Amino acid sequence: MALMTKEEYIESLRGMKKRVFILGKQVENVVDHPLVRPSLNACAMTYELAQQSEYADLMRATSNLTKQTVNRFTHLHQSTADLVAKVKMQRVLGQKTGCCFQRCVGMDAFNALDSVTCEMDRALGTTYHARFRRYLQYVQARDLVVDGAMTDPKGDRRLSPSQQADPDLFVHIVEKRSDGIVVRGAKLHQTGALNSHEIIVMPTQTLAEQDKDYAVAFAIQADAPGITMIFGRQPSDTRKLEDGQLDVGNREFGGHEAVIVLDNVFVPWDRVFMAGEYAFSGLLVGRFAGYHRQSYGGCKTGVGDVLIGAAQSLAQYQGTDKASHIKDKIVEMIHLNETMYACGIACSTEGKPTASGTYLIDLLLANVCKLNVTRFPYEIARLAQDIAGGLLVTLPSEKDLANPEVGPYLEKFLRGVERYTTEERYRMLRLLENLTLGPGAAAYLAESMHGAGSPQAQRIMLARLADLEGKTRLAQRLAGIAERPSP
Amino acid sequence: MALMTKEEYIESLRGMKKRVFILGKQVENVVDHPLVRPSLNACAMTYELAQQSEYADLMRATSNLTKQTVNRFTHLHQSTADLVAKVKMQRVLGQKTGCCFQRCVGMDAFNALDSVTCEMDRALGTTYHARFRRYLQYVQARDLVVDGAMTDPKGDRRLSPSQQADPDLFVHIVEKRSDGIVVRGAKLHQTGALNSHEIIVMPTQTLAEQDKDYAVAFAIQADAPGITMIFGRQPSDTRKLEDGQLDVGNREFGGHEAVIVLDNVFVPWDRVFMAGEYAFSGLLVGRFAGYHRQSYGGCKTGVGDVLIGAAQSLAQYQGTDKASHIKDKIVEMIHLNETMYACGIACSTEGKPTASGTYLIDLLLANVCKLNVTRFPYEIARLAQDIAGGLLVTLPSEKDLANPEVGPYLEKFLRGVERYTTEERYRMLRLLENLTLGPGAAAYLAESMHGAGSPQAQRIMLARLADLEGKTRLAQRLAGIAERPSP
Amino acid sequence: MALMTKEEYIESLRGMKKRVFILGKQVENVVDHPLVRPSLNACAMTYELAQQSEYADLMRATSNLTKQTVNRFTHLHQSTADLVAKVKMQRVLGQKTGCCFQRCVGMDAFNALDSVTCEMDRALGTTYHARFRRYLQYVQARDLVVDGAMTDPKGDRRLSPSQQADPDLFVHIVEKRSDGIVVRGAKLHQTGALNSHEIIVMPTQTLAEQDKDYAVAFAIQADAPGITMIFGRQPSDTRKLEDGQLDVGNREFGGHEAVIVLDNVFVPWDRVFMAGEYAFSGLLVGRFAGYHRQSYGGCKTGVGDVLIGAAQSLAQYQGTDKASHIKDKIVEMIHLNETMYACGIACSTEGKPTASGTYLIDLLLANVCKLNVTRFPYEIARLAQDIAGGLLVTLPSEKDLANPEVGPYLEKFLRGVERYTTEERYRMLRLLENLTLGPGAAAYLAESMHGAGSPQAQRIMLARLADLEGKTRLAQRLAGIAERPSP
Amino acid sequence: MALMTKEEYIESLRGMKKRVFILGKQVENVVDHPLVRPSLNACAMTYELAQQSEYADLMRATSNLTKQTVNRFTHLHQSTADLVAKVKMQRVLGQKTGCCFQRCVGMDAFNALDSVTCEMDRALGTTYHARFRRYLQYVQARDLVVDGAMTDPKGDRRLSPSQQADPDLFVHIVEKRSDGIVVRGAKLHQTGALNSHEIIVMPTQTLAEQDKDYAVAFAIQADAPGITMIFGRQPSDTRKLEDGQLDVGNREFGGHEAVIVLDNVFVPWDRVFMAGEYAFSGLLVGRFAGYHRQSYGGCKTGVGDVLIGAAQSLAQYQGTDKASHIKDKIVEMIHLNETMYACGIACSTEGKPTASGTYLIDLLLANVCKLNVTRFPYEIARLAQDIAGGLLVTLPSEKDLANPEVGPYLEKFLRGVERYTTEERYRMLRLLENLTLGPGAAAYLAESMHGAGSPQAQRIMLARLADLEGKTRLAQRLAGIAERPSP
Repeated sequence: MALMTKEEYIESLRGMKKRVFILGKQVENVVDHPLVRPSLNACAMTYELAQQSEYADLMRATSNLTKQTVNRFTHLHQSTADLVAKVKMQRVLGQKTGCCFQRCVGMDAFNALDSVTCEMDRALGTTYHARFRRYLQYVQARDLVVDGAMTDPKGDRRLSPSQQADPDLFVHIVEKRSDGIVVRGAKLHQTGALNSHEIIVMPTQTLAEQDKDYAVAFAIQADAPGITMIFGRQPSDTRKLEDGQLDVGNREFGGHEAVIVLDNVFVPWDRVFMAGEYAFSGLLVGRFAGYHRQSYGGCKTGVGDVLIGAAQSLAQYQGTDKASHIKDKIVEMIHLNETMYACGIACSTEGKPTASGTYLIDLLLANVCKLNVTRFPYEIARLAQDIAGGLLVTLPSEKDLANPEVGPYLEKFLRGVERYTTEERYRMLRLLENLTLGPGAAAYLAESMHGAGSPQAQRIMLARLADLEGKTRLAQRLAGIAERPSP
Repeated sequence: MALMTKEEYIESLRGMKKRVFILGKQVENVVDHPLVRPSLNACAMTYELAQQSEYADLMRATSNLTKQTVNRFTHLHQSTADLVAKVKMQRVLGQKTGCCFQRCVGMDAFNALDSVTCEMDRALGTTYHARFRRYLQYVQARDLVVDGAMTDPKGDRRLSPSQQADPDLFVHIVEKRSDGIVVRGAKLHQTGALNSHEIIVMPTQTLAEQDKDYAVAFAIQADAPGITMIFGRQPSDTRKLEDGQLDVGNREFGGHEAVIVLDNVFVPWDRVFMAGEYAFSGLLVGRFAGYHRQSYGGCKTGVGDVLIGAAQSLAQYQGTDKASHIKDKIVEMIHLNETMYACGIACSTEGKPTASGTYLIDLLLANVCKLNVTRFPYEIARLAQDIAGGLLVTLPSEKDLANPEVGPYLEKFLRGVERYTTEERYRMLRLLENLTLGPGAAAYLAESMHGAGSPQAQRIMLARLADLEGKTRLAQRLAGIAERPSP
Repeated sequence: MALMTKEEYIESLRGMKKRVFILGKQVENVVDHPLVRPSLNACAMTYELAQQSEYADLMRATSNLTKQTVNRFTHLHQSTADLVAKVKMQRVLGQKTGCCFQRCVGMDAFNALDSVTCEMDRALGTTYHARFRRYLQYVQARDLVVDGAMTDPKGDRRLSPSQQADPDLFVHIVEKRSDGIVVRGAKLHQTGALNSHEIIVMPTQTLAEQDKDYAVAFAIQADAPGITMIFGRQPSDTRKLEDGQLDVGNREFGGHEAVIVLDNVFVPWDRVFMAGEYAFSGLLVGRFAGYHRQSYGGCKTGVGDVLIGAAQSLAQYQGTDKASHIKDKIVEMIHLNETMYACGIACSTEGKPTASGTYLIDLLLANVCKLNVTRFPYEIARLAQDIAGGLLVTLPSEKDLANPEVGPYLEKFLRGVERYTTEERYRMLRLLENLTLGPGAAAYLAESMHGAGSPQAQRIMLARLADLEGKTRLAQRLAGIAERPSP
Repeated sequence: MALMTKEEYIESLRGMKKRVFILGKQVENVVDHPLVRPSLNACAMTYELAQQSEYADLMRATSNLTKQTVNRFTHLHQSTADLVAKVKMQRVLGQKTGCCFQRCVGMDAFNALDSVTCEMDRALGTTYHARFRRYLQYVQARDLVVDGAMTDPKGDRRLSPSQQADPDLFVHIVEKRSDGIVVRGAKLHQTGALNSHEIIVMPTQTLAEQDKDYAVAFAIQADAPGITMIFGRQPSDTRKLEDGQLDVGNREFGGHEAVIVLDNVFVPWDRVFMAGEYAFSGLLVGRFAGYHRQSYGGCKTGVGDVLIGAAQSLAQYQGTDKASHIKDKIVEMIHLNETMYACGIACSTEGKPTASGTYLIDLLLANVCKLNVTRFPYEIARLAQDIAGGLLVTLPSEKDLANPEVGPYLEKFLRGVERYTTEERYRMLRLLENLTLGPGAAAYLAESMHGAGSPQAQRIMLARLADLEGKTRLAQRLAGIAERPSP
């Protein structure tokens, strides 16, 4: 069984020499950095639950490559049951961490690359598929965290990669050598980059022939020479640096994002999975995005469960939980949350095998799923803030609560229903703040909007996938209009 | 193979002697009545498609009772695959008819009664389950249309059945005899009643001991003595009585509703499936409603496909189909439609077997499905009207178009893009009118709202099924609050 | 006082010889035609209320042209108080009729033409303004109903008037003579055309030089030679032809629409207000549309009041009016309705005088008003249908209620709370059906969408009027960015 | 002219000896505290603009008490023009500060107390009105900032003040002395408390006789003995403590909130405006809330302008500003923002004089205004985040940008359209982050939700004010139902 324990995972990261900058300073020991550690804890939960028999069905799978038991995050989906298990696993992890646990992008990259390299090889006679599967066996055997890196900086959005003023605004091959390639560029919004062993780089959009050099996909160790990671800020991030327990909201878990710079990074050929086959860039992007749009039907509904629970708790603390308008808002939150989940499940059960045997979700429904995710968490958060009351943004610091002069005032005046303590209310308000206005909101709201592509990207896919012409024929038939082809 | 042809079905109805009133007059030959025939055509489509091999997987099933091939509308779901096939069948039928095809209530009643009678027998030592299954074999062998009758008039909503001024405002047993029971009352909103061979009556809500006599379920032939059916009006219904082709919108298909009066109707014991077991009334209502809430994720998305096609066609006829705001509205319609479908699929794949072996949908997700159906068709219809333009409600009659004096004016002035005829535009506008403001809207909008229970009914179920306490525990854990039971 | 009584108004129409086609037949006596009469009653209400001292402030005004008391519908707004009174008058009329009372388009045309002819004369040296004011004095003195005709058929929307396959798809001048002009074309969606004494024709969009001949505005008697009116269908229109009282919903009032064909119609010069000045077509369209977008903040909120009242009544009849979810829906309906009204009021009080002295609404806010009107009535109608229950679309005909065999059944079973009769419930359900799925919905929904321009027209105006560059400067200042002009 | 300059205002605060705790420590010099100063700057803007002739009409008024020119924030509204000027002043201040400028609560308290004391005196023979007006002259002459303190902690929401476990959970009179009263309790969510000269305390809800002692209103100096202020936390608040320019988002302005504890505070009789007259507590609360609900139609639309400008700027920097879906989102933001503004204007122009001569807004429309404010800013913020892109929550710190090793990478890779610098993009992203996920969101979102009462409070008012019975009569008349009184 190729599963690391949580502790082994953390140790394995200590051995790495990543070049990381946080708040303007280079950091050697990222594992213990207080801004990073919560996100590491969240990622480590993917190891911890995999050790528990209770979650074995969700967290583990039998590798189709080796027949070994592997962590599902390194698995190629072999059935719709696998696709469903993925979503359920993600919901549980969202519930346990209340944040992004960061390991999905790698999983989604594996599955996308597997089928695309297979189809590319068949069409072009290349040999990427076997190479990719060898690489994936390496990952599975070591139970690695792999960052899936797609989003380029993009510069002026009106221009294609090669038209940009600076050719490096999209990652590209700057040299092809006998032993490998040299690449340059950067990837933005790299969730969990500091917690990863490896990075898989993919192109960010459909490319035309003139942008051939930008059609590049490969895997690289996260501490390879030439790689620099610059940590991103989040709302209220530095509360994690304060010595406290309450104001941080989610005490143990969090997420992080980074800019990854690739400054003339060398990649040996056995880790290169696309190098110029621009005609397959769109397919790769679409499949990766599709898998990742499915993912959000899992993880965000798990976080949604936490947020609903927080709102309900606060209502209980205030004595409003039986008020009909509060119950109605809770029901609405549940309804929206479960709608997203239903879309995540449906795109999974409607999945189909690809040529490589790996299962692909139903792309139309996966895009529908994500488009709902760009809307509903915002409304759920709004309703949660409605229930929480104004204290959400006016609560004094925990240091005031601890202060001998004013602490007793706060204890006295911020007490709600008698059976609950003021501290309980404090903690719950801070959790809800974290999720809707703090670092948790970076993941629950902004990432729900932009992760796996902004809403317009989903809309374009819906237009493409929905068989509009078939629908016009249905209408024509009922209206008694003779069929004729669209112009 | 126990499948009737469409023609046999229509003939079988001719043989019946239903007591039917339409627009104030008793009607003998309902089969050929122009207000009824379109609905009969829609119901007949469930026979027609079952004959076509293309739809065999969706329309037919192997009876678990007899191992015979039966129409899926008479089948007990034996797997989640059966539950999914049901939804897909309903979507296809919605696409083919653009209206309600009326046969789902019976199917949903069979499946609910099957598991509930089984569990009731186990709990109470009654013998309803075998009796019910014998009855269902009768239905399967004859491929019958069975109306599932649930909604009582209810009178003053604040009062329970026995508290009403008139005891008949809910169907109840007025006499128990050795050979059967005598019942009195009425059922409202009986979709497709005139096209049915049989009626299955069920209680409409959870009942307490004092309402014992109202806890009654049974099957009865639709033309049994004491039964009267009074046809309901729909918007623009009498356009079907005009001699024309265009203004009716949906030329061939429609739906209908009726009030069914049960005036001292005798039911022999072998057709009685509940008679006083009030403690099981809520379970029966919840399961029937659950199945029927799933159904709407199928049929209404099929009608939605037609409506999207109609809107897209009209945009083409006007030359606006490439305008970005029109494309965006079409995408939004697709998105909403597919979200409902996703919920229909997800509650099916998450279904589980009951004690009788019959599969039950996931009730939480089925309620989520229906709650979306009470919203999205209205928004889809609004967007369709936006795209259609004002002509939707200002178009002169088809008789004006045919009139030698003004017809040429209309031909000339109502022509859009040259490659399409004015008549095409006329037909498509009338179809869209039918679906959003005409008889089709009765089904696509008002029935989406109230069929299988009004939205508040779904909200109550969501509150009950969502494990709120579990969610508060998730939040407490992340906030560092010691668990304690809810008050 | 130049005010006609309601009876005089109706008589005045009898004297006219309009060429009208209804349902394929030419009709001589339109005044008494059962499909037309309800709309005439609604228009007549603008005369009836003007006679009542209770409504004098709203319905009457002192003409700035003659100092005579005139009906506000023929008045040029001389202050923001006038603009506000207009909206309040419209709300009252909507409340009294539950439909479109048809006289606003003329009023809006007068006000738009007044300022535009003034500004056009100043810029181009033409003399339209005095001519227009003479014409308006004629209208005021006779208290006429004037149809404001703007919307051309438009054909292929991608093409300008002169590019269309058929040059007549927009109204244009076919001949300029010494005594006047000859025009040809048609106008669609002509609300209340049959009830009008006069028609004012205006161009439908901004025109360029090549479409000069289409830049034409004039007034013409509604029965002038060459004019044909073809009556439009509405949902359930023919219920007005049935001999009944209940099923028609709104017994006394309704609206109507017509296609007006102008087949080589001669217009003398003293009734021509634009003839080739294409550069002013956009200004005229924008102002007319602006006034008319304001109007909807009045009339539709009046109809909304009726719909809210109908929903509340039905809740009372059913005994659900105290249920918290019903109360909440009623509140939501009120909120949406009053939001529209607030926009109608605000664009009025923020109005400013034009060069001619006539007051123009704030165009930005008038467009905001109308854009809300394209959304909120649909949601109000949806909520009303939610409250009404399924009977809305399953209720048997009033002839069934009157039938001696089944009438008693309906009396018995459709009774709600005891203090209300079944007939009351019948009447109220039919009113709500009329407003949300019947002829009333043509006005309350589809006209709310498209009247005064479809939503995209308002969005384009918002983009134009909102001073986006000023807003970027506000943001730059706070962000500490040096100002620089937009590219 | 009784107007202080901005500098005089700041100096006047230095002279006060408030007892203030911030982040667990007592702070002597609050004026220069970096967490407080931005909010002081915002409040100071109310002085700064009043000095500028450009804003004289909006910022200044002629006191009806003294005929002196006073700052409008201390003025009693004497006309609907005053009410409108208030809203426009607030919009300008929101535009200039991008946050809450804190001085409205005092103004709204003045106006509410003025009419309520007048009516209370007339009804009860008390003499509060003259006393209040003397106090207000004192405020006007000195141009003071007065905090309006309404919200009590409330404890268990199911219990009335005197039923609470702790009697101090609502402010109440603990002693009536010959020279004044002694009060105890606390007020939460006190916006701008540290920047105030005075505090006006009012009851928080309608009170019954047993809660008589809680019916208390008075003014007190902000540094009176017994008063303690505890500063509230906001998202990302400590970025103001970092030495930087960019990450703080809004460099110069912000808001703040505080808990105010009143621990046996003595108030002399000439500053007491209610002391036991519980029957008038509801009226006072309703009027204050009404004025404050109007306020949000001004200030929040001003901040909305900034947010729209920020989103548009970011679109320009990325080259997406001409994409149709981006333009459409900008239009939607404008539409929602202007809808709120329209409601603010309409409730002002529909205002009416009270018995004291002071004008009251239309309460129905003011509640409609605020109810929209509990929704639309959230949607505007969501759209802004959509346009901004993922960088909003992944951007590295400004210290990384300044770092010699990684700064050049960020300069290079985060550059958008060439004519804009990376720093401009940084600044604008941080402003948008501030407004939607940072301290600005505390005001723009959570305060929009809860300030002046949570949405349910507005809904209750709408139900009360909307004349539902009148609406049922409108419907009955059209349906042909004889009028009868509601039960």
